[in-house]
Amino acid sequence: MLKLSRAARVALLVKSLVEHPGEVIPLAHFAERLGAAKSSISEDVALVRAAFETAGGGRLTTLAGAAGGVVYLPLPSPAEQADVVRRLAGVLSAPERILPGGFLYMTDVVSSPVWAARIGEVFAARFHAARPTCVLTVETKGIPVALMTARALNLPLVIARREGRVTEGPQVTISYVTGSRGRIETLTAGIRAIPPEARVLIIDDFIKAGGTAAGMIELVRQFPGATVVGIGVLVATAEPARKRVSGYRSLLTLEGVDEEQGTVRIVPSESEG
Amino acid sequence: MLKLSRAARVALLVKSLVEHPGEVIPLAHFAERLGAAKSSISEDVALVRAAFETAGGGRLTTLAGAAGGVVYLPLPSPAEQADVVRRLAGVLSAPERILPGGFLYMTDVVSSPVWAARIGEVFAARFHAARPTCVLTVETKGIPVALMTARALNLPLVIARREGRVTEGPQVTISYVTGSRGRIETLTAGIRAIPPEARVLIIDDFIKAGGTAAGMIELVRQFPGATVVGIGVLVATAEPARKRVSGYRSLLTLEGVDEEQGTVRIVPSESEG
Repeated sequence: MLKLSRAARVALLVKSLVEHPGEVIPLAHFAERLGAAKSSISEDVALVRAAFETAGGGRLTTLAGAAGGVVYLPLPSPAEQADVVRRLAGVLSAPERILPGGFLYMTDVVSSPVWAARIGEVFAARFHAARPTCVLTVETKGIPVALMTARALNLPLVIARREGRVTEGPQVTISYVTGSRGRIETLTAGIRAIPPEARVLIIDDFIKAGGTAAGMIELVRQFPGATVVGIGVLVATAEPARKRVSGYRSLLTLEGVDEEQGTVRIVPSESEG
Repeated sequence: MLKLSRAARVALLVKSLVEHPGEVIPLAHFAERLGAAKSSISEDVALVRAAFETAGGGRLTTLAGAAGGVVYLPLPSPAEQADVVRRLAGVLSAPERILPGGFLYMTDVVSSPVWAARIGEVFAARFHAARPTCVLTVETKGIPVALMTARALNLPLVIARREGRVTEGPQVTISYVTGSRGRIETLTAGIRAIPPEARVLIIDDFIKAGGTAAGMIELVRQFPGATVVGIGVLVATAEPARKRVSGYRSLLTLEGVDEEQGTVRIVPSESEG
């Protein structure tokens, strides 16, 4: 490989780090790939770290030791998180999102790769300190946001399903009562999907009465030594205030949809449920 | 903002571009954010483009005109695509993946953020030239790979569902016969999810007889002016060779699972279905 300028090395270094969020990459890997001494790479990393600090939003961390290297964590600052949440509130409060029955159309936002990435990074920033080892969601609408959260934290994603499938192998199934309609539903996850002692971060797009979230907690309990270390939901309804789970964190609170007036009241959440 | 060195500007420029794949970002945006003249930013972009070209895997393109700017396309080269597919074949051929009945456990791979990103980039590279305007998949297992394909191409993702939901608004539903079991299934998508004249790229994780893919094509036909411009599947079974759809492209061919011998034959696909 040709000898690269510092700026060219920085370009390739940053590309590689940002495309592999949460992965610890040894300096020796970059030294070899970029045809430079490890000391030069160290200087490049220091420069990139300082540049990222001036701009905010995502930081570079260096880990020492045998398993050491450099890792990019796409964790937005509190101000950036607030900005994402505020912009979401704006998008979701558009009157044309009101569906018959006072429901809110959110599908385009939660399945948009761009929004899912930004929301996933906000969840990653909020739950990083809880040291989760996997992200759990339930099919279907929460999957994109949960995947992007898992991506930002470099964790595996587990998707609980409503019905067992032969292609999942042996499964654990639980039954629970839905909060809003009092119906009995099942949730299932493959036995090999959640390892023993897993620290599970539950991510979903919406919480109303909390029955499904309670079901996911119950599901996690079936796995030896597994614990729920956090519950993040994009939108929580203001009513019922008392939900079947506590300790969840929502980004937005849906205070109400007025079909007659054609208004949606959705605001950044102030406190935790 | 402090005046940044070229290398620091390059670090922030690359971070921003790689985190927003497929988005055209005006040079003026960078000039303002990085406190530099547009001519300096142009030089930075040229430097980054050249660096990316030496390394392969993802390229920078500059678009002229009023809607102009610079865009990062994470499209791996043919050699890199082949490498991803070869590594996948290796991972998926592990004997411990064999499930009773000769099924193959793939869930951890298709829902892994890291694998889904790499697979999505391969699909993006293969279908970029077909100029899709949205990506369509069906719940559940194909969603992560389809989302990452949509992300690499900066397109919206549409998730067809098995049953209609009130939160999707008015929906289009079709019925189809599954290829393998001859059962009648339904597929539904929100009317607002697929815009008129959409150029739809169908992405799924697995194809056997092709009934579900045929169902998705039928679903797209219900939307005014919409056309299917490509069908990408991660794994196609070798049998039945004649499927209910033609023109799909698979990355891997599952030739067979031998439960007794404990062997999986899965290889990079050679030609299109």
